[in-house]
Amino acid sequence: MSDQFRMMDGNEAAAYIAYQLNDVIAIYPITPASPMGELCDSWSASGKPNLWGTVPDVIELQSEAGAAGAVHGALQAGAKTCTFTASQGLLLKIPNMFKIAAELTPTVFHIATRSVATHALSIFCDHSDVMAARTTGFAMLVSNSVQEVMDMATIAEMASLQGRVPVLHFFDGFRTSHEVSKVNIVTREMLRQLIDRDLIRACRDRALSPEHPVVRGTSQNPDLFFQSREASNPFYDAFPDVVQTAMDRFASVTGRHYHLYEYVGSPRADKVIILMGSGAETAEETVSYLNKQDAQKGLFGLLKVRLFRPFDAQRLLAALPDSVNKIAVLDRTKEPGANGEPLYKDISTALLQDLLQELLQASQSGELSTVTQQKIIGGRFGLSSKEFTPAMVKAVFDELDKPHSKNLFTIGINDDLTHTSLDYDPTFTTDAHAANVQALFYGLGADGTVSANKNSIKIIGEQDGFYAQGHFVYDSKKSGAITVSHLRFGKEPIHSAYEIQDNHANFIACHQTDFLKLYPMLDKAAHAAIFLLNTTAAASQAWETFPATVQQQIIDKNIAVYVIDAYTVASEARLGTRINTIMQTCFFAISGILPHDEAIAQIKEAVQKTYGHQSQRVVDLNMRAIDTTIAQLHSVDIPNQASSRIPMHEVHTENASDFVNPK
Amino acid sequence: MSDQFRMMDGNEAAAYIAYQLNDVIAIYPITPASPMGELCDSWSASGKPNLWGTVPDVIELQSEAGAAGAVHGALQAGAKTCTFTASQGLLLKIPNMFKIAAELTPTVFHIATRSVATHALSIFCDHSDVMAARTTGFAMLVSNSVQEVMDMATIAEMASLQGRVPVLHFFDGFRTSHEVSKVNIVTREMLRQLIDRDLIRACRDRALSPEHPVVRGTSQNPDLFFQSREASNPFYDAFPDVVQTAMDRFASVTGRHYHLYEYVGSPRADKVIILMGSGAETAEETVSYLNKQDAQKGLFGLLKVRLFRPFDAQRLLAALPDSVNKIAVLDRTKEPGANGEPLYKDISTALLQDLLQELLQASQSGELSTVTQQKIIGGRFGLSSKEFTPAMVKAVFDELDKPHSKNLFTIGINDDLTHTSLDYDPTFTTDAHAANVQALFYGLGADGTVSANKNSIKIIGEQDGFYAQGHFVYDSKKSGAITVSHLRFGKEPIHSAYEIQDNHANFIACHQTDFLKLYPMLDKAAHAAIFLLNTTAAASQAWETFPATVQQQIIDKNIAVYVIDAYTVASEARLGTRINTIMQTCFFAISGILPHDEAIAQIKEAVQKTYGHQSQRVVDLNMRAIDTTIAQLHSVDIPNQASSRIPMHEVHTENASDFVNPK
Repeated sequence: MSDQFRMMDGNEAAAYIAYQLNDVIAIYPITPASPMGELCDSWSASGKPNLWGTVPDVIELQSEAGAAGAVHGALQAGAKTCTFTASQGLLLKIPNMFKIAAELTPTVFHIATRSVATHALSIFCDHSDVMAARTTGFAMLVSNSVQEVMDMATIAEMASLQGRVPVLHFFDGFRTSHEVSKVNIVTREMLRQLIDRDLIRACRDRALSPEHPVVRGTSQNPDLFFQSREASNPFYDAFPDVVQTAMDRFASVTGRHYHLYEYVGSPRADKVIILMGSGAETAEETVSYLNKQDAQKGLFGLLKVRLFRPFDAQRLLAALPDSVNKIAVLDRTKEPGANGEPLYKDISTALLQDLLQELLQASQSGELSTVTQQKIIGGRFGLSSKEFTPAMVKAVFDELDKPHSKNLFTIGINDDLTHTSLDYDPTFTTDAHAANVQALFYGLGADGTVSANKNSIKIIGEQDGFYAQGHFVYDSKKSGAITVSHLRFGKEPIHSAYEIQDNHANFIACHQTDFLKLYPMLDKAAHAAIFLLNTTAAASQAWETFPATVQQQIIDKNIAVYVIDAYTVASEARLGTRINTIMQTCFFAISGILPHDEAIAQIKEAVQKTYGHQSQRVVDLNMRAIDTTIAQLHSVDIPNQASSRIPMHEVHTENASDFVNPK
Repeated sequence: MSDQFRMMDGNEAAAYIAYQLNDVIAIYPITPASPMGELCDSWSASGKPNLWGTVPDVIELQSEAGAAGAVHGALQAGAKTCTFTASQGLLLKIPNMFKIAAELTPTVFHIATRSVATHALSIFCDHSDVMAARTTGFAMLVSNSVQEVMDMATIAEMASLQGRVPVLHFFDGFRTSHEVSKVNIVTREMLRQLIDRDLIRACRDRALSPEHPVVRGTSQNPDLFFQSREASNPFYDAFPDVVQTAMDRFASVTGRHYHLYEYVGSPRADKVIILMGSGAETAEETVSYLNKQDAQKGLFGLLKVRLFRPFDAQRLLAALPDSVNKIAVLDRTKEPGANGEPLYKDISTALLQDLLQELLQASQSGELSTVTQQKIIGGRFGLSSKEFTPAMVKAVFDELDKPHSKNLFTIGINDDLTHTSLDYDPTFTTDAHAANVQALFYGLGADGTVSANKNSIKIIGEQDGFYAQGHFVYDSKKSGAITVSHLRFGKEPIHSAYEIQDNHANFIACHQTDFLKLYPMLDKAAHAAIFLLNTTAAASQAWETFPATVQQQIIDKNIAVYVIDAYTVASEARLGTRINTIMQTCFFAISGILPHDEAIAQIKEAVQKTYGHQSQRVVDLNMRAIDTTIAQLHSVDIPNQASSRIPMHEVHTENASDFVNPK
């Protein structure tokens, strides 16, 4: 079966599979999981059939609690049913989840992970939501990338149907849910091979029905409850095997082979990092780079935990090379008051039993010196989408090499209060950036920059032989605040699940003139990068409007500068203040990624796709803007010396409160 | 300060403290926590003042989620606020709990623990509810007995005010919440000494107010969230010390001294059980008995975990004698798919770090043979109020002594499916029963048996020098089903947190004639016990109406039998079918616990207290019934041989489904 590639984000990948394999989809959308529900709702509204030719019922309830109740009810009626959620939304589903799991009902909940609101609300990513649901008896399967979202969504459905344990399938909010990436599609034909119709029928046969009445969901007393509760054990004991079998079968159809606990790195590694989620992609890139740096030693390893529940301790330990004796477990959550985070404690528990066994054998044989000297430390990373970079991965490995490694550490912040944080060298990077092009776009929330960049990255990524990644950084204020689009593309697969680093961007576009003074964006520029600025200044005057440090960076890094007065072009094209298509056209024109004519044709097609269902007039206006843009795009001559006296914007805190300036 | 004893149950003990120390009490009652809310509501309605002379506002919301929201709001307004709940009710509070904890707001939630509904709903006790809330950042403090409920409720308030971490104070539903026991009261005078008014004022000063405006509960983005979240660390790091300091101060005022992790048993013990909740009382009784059995060896120990969160691993390990090398951790919860239950994993994690440290030092000194050979196993007990008896405690110790101890076991059931269960010898008991009187009462739900027995145990327990315990076993159908009252009383303190065992009951009353054929209640009878039966048969004919096995047990155990036709007495006294006061009078008349006249006077006083607020007529009718009862109470002559051909009721399952009779 030939590969079918498409550019999509993690939410679409999950929704694509969920829609194909369900009859009922009960939703109450919440950021960053909303697009899953919205996509399914719009597909259902347009009459798109699922794998079995029926159009799923997509029902929106009054809250996430209601959605969970509807899921429970529909499942008991025999309908293949699923839902999507995150954060507080997941918390509200917990009561029903205990019941769905204990009744051994196949279903998959797809979670774009998001911080649970604590001292502050946050729409961003960590695993505090799914970890709060780990007591429910749901299996927990994690995806680290957009491709994996599609694949694990399929595997989760296969395994749940087979093993009757419901699955919480989770992936990192925004980082994976909103990252646009090139996905090798699990086609409908593949799904037909992978999903066993007899198992679907078995769900229907187990439905509550007057045709074959049984009683369920009763009240039990102390005489019965405990032993009945233990009656689900065989299903949990078997489930890791069920998931691995599904993974193997998935591989035979798609060619992509996964394992419950996947070790990558050197077979002789002495130190290993264990983690879940998109951070594993960054860690893999870093491990591979570090092992290359000292190929003879090759001391670095990574264990990706894919199946977190049921936790198969034996398989996990077996996946580690024998040479490993220093382990750092990273959790993307915080449980104040616990002596370590969940994954760290799972692995510590497994290691303790292993070590005690080893000690016992060694003492019986009298050879205590053979007992492995081990070290295990645990730490937190990436709370609420705090960046997790190769520099941080390296710092964790470095910590493992110290004689007294810090335990229960944090990485990615400067904890000057309780000193849990590890230092890291932010200038450390891998060489992954060298293999591809990195482009950055600074726009205003709701100015269309992100939409245009999503189109751009799809245009690029859908070229044969090209890989591409689009990551979009908003703040929670969305409209009116800054948005930064991080695009990577090229001939090599991209595993960098972190923002474009300083000195790595080959192209930087600033869609708002003011931002140039506010954000030191040329810190990001690589040598000989291209810089595109939207400004009312003419090409001949633009240089004088740049802050001094910007001028110096342009000279030092030999940056090529282009300017366009996009608001005037937009206004003349009767687009009001919508400059997105204009800036996108400039990007393709300057960067030369695609042949000029082809790029223009593709942008026009994307415009048709994006706005066509709204208004043909908007499409026509954009088409005209595209045609007039190139003439208005000018390059700027760069002098040999910086001359500007314009300073960057500074933050003044002299008169701020004690909270900002502690005494 | 002199001791003030009162008979009360765990719910009343918690409510008593909560009411004294709060301004706002937001409730949505749920079994078995309901009486806490109901008591506070009735106290508030009657204008009872709290410690500071104001009458708390008790507000009932539309659900437990609403109650949690109201608590959060009232706390932010500076009011001392609390709530009570259990099971699903607690699950609905979780979203607000994350916020209350992260905002470092002092409060105490009192939880009468109850199973979360899974394959079946259950109103009975285990810790699945509080364990599902362990990710929220609340501290978790557990009480093992009614006395401890009053004491820990006080300590929780003291510590939370001091350390700003909110506390989940939990105790076992029904077993502790509904057990009537003799409690040494923390008086208002003591509370005045223990609760620091400055800390109350500090709560008020932190309230949101237009007088000193601050912003709270904002939305944060990746730039700020992680480090802000870590800013609560110092409060959690300090909290175990804060709680211990509160315990020490509590001791100086009340004389009762608690520790975060309390070891009892032999200082030379090689094996120890670690657990939380009422089971610790039973374990303590068993450890003490086992150590007495072999006083020279004295190998048994028990560690009671009182502070579960923040988990102070160092203090916990330090509380264990150095001699301990075999540990069994018992959890009263089940998390399907986890590699062990929560407390077991906490302790495993702590032990691993300890062992690795020991190994490192041993290897540096070259003396690996000094490394302690340890064993740690974990198991589940008591799900949904499954009994946990001394026999089970002993079975766990026996398992530790086996060369290959079962890990992740269950105790208390027969798991014939996955063979997790340990065998135990149900005939093993401690000698605790010998020190006191045990009395059993078989009644019909809603026939007044339980109310009368609550009065009886209060009458007995409030005698000087007497200890007493009343435990009441209902099923969830309550009205119309069987209720069994287990009363223990005597001169020794009572730690038996389990039902009265076979051959231990000194007094058995059967309030419904039919029950004699249905339940083998005389299995419970001790030698020379007294048996009281409500029957329409005359004393001379009663013997012939007993089943054969009952007759044989009466002869074998030399049981004295009394009968009364309580329904006729009730009817003649115009009490309808309410026989409770009549049977209670018989109990006091036969058992001779109190002098006859004093007992009658006390029963009459209790009747006045129980029914006086409803109707003086009901009181008068009961008074008359009490006076006429003794004349209708007759002893039965016991022949030398059993003669009956009446069989016990048998359960026939021949024609039942495959579910009952698996093929």
